[in-house]
Amino acid sequence: MPTRKANATWEGGLQSGKGSFEGESGAIQGSYSFGSRFGDAGGTNPEELLAAAEAACFSMALAVGLEQNGTPATRVHTDAACTITKEAEGFRITTIALRCLAQVPNVDADTFASIAAATKAGCPVSKALAGVDIQLDAALE
Amino acid sequence: MPTRKANATWEGGLQSGKGSFEGESGAIQGSYSFGSRFGDAGGTNPEELLAAAEAACFSMALAVGLEQNGTPATRVHTDAACTITKEAEGFRITTIALRCLAQVPNVDADTFASIAAATKAGCPVSKALAGVDIQLDAALE
Repeated sequence: MPTRKANATWEGGLQSGKGSFEGESGAIQGSYSFGSRFGDAGGTNPEELLAAAEAACFSMALAVGLEQNGTPATRVHTDAACTITKEAEGFRITTIALRCLAQVPNVDADTFASIAAATKAGCPVSKALAGVDIQLDAALE
Repeated sequence: MPTRKANATWEGGLQSGKGSFEGESGAIQGSYSFGSRFGDAGGTNPEELLAAAEAACFSMALAVGLEQNGTPATRVHTDAACTITKEAEGFRITTIALRCLAQVPNVDADTFASIAAATKAGCPVSKALAGVDIQLDAALE
């Protein structure tokens, strides 16, 4: 089964150092720093990558679930917000909040809600992120 | 504490559909498909994003741990390989294998190994990815 690769390099200390990463596909790369992760400096950070991974996996998996139900979606759009919090033992990624809007002809709201909830619990990235409270607000549009 | 946002859209069915994602920073965006996730088609996928997040977080956190030990690193480089496997109940992200090479003046190998192991277990993205077996091969260069 597929194995996907990426790498990252950090140079220097926490406050003054700098990081960069790139994926093997060539499609993703970026720089990060203490400021881009814990402050408002430009650049990306691991939490944005996790939010993108969860949003991408959830949107794809919800489309699959709706297709398997015989009510395929035209479009599934998901916003993900990933929060990191300082705790006594250090930083912890506490929540990823999903807001999903889906165009699904011919599905009733209860069935949609049930499939969306099952997708939140069961999609591969949700299962991987078992240490995070994943929250879902899903609606038909 | 910081909340980082990204979004993704999936249009169409599993085999014929297509996805795209973007992060709020503007630093990451990409397209994905069944072929780019489970085959060899071009484009990225959620597993590559998870590999990048884990590599980025681990490299930064190991630099912090070495700095706190009084033996700051000059450079920490980490390759991450994320594997997704088909199981009876569907796809599961099973492992992220990390290979780390670090330039650390004045640290002994045992201390380095201990700090690296603690970082693997305790960095925020590792803790978030509690459903994944994270493996580490770390060496001084």
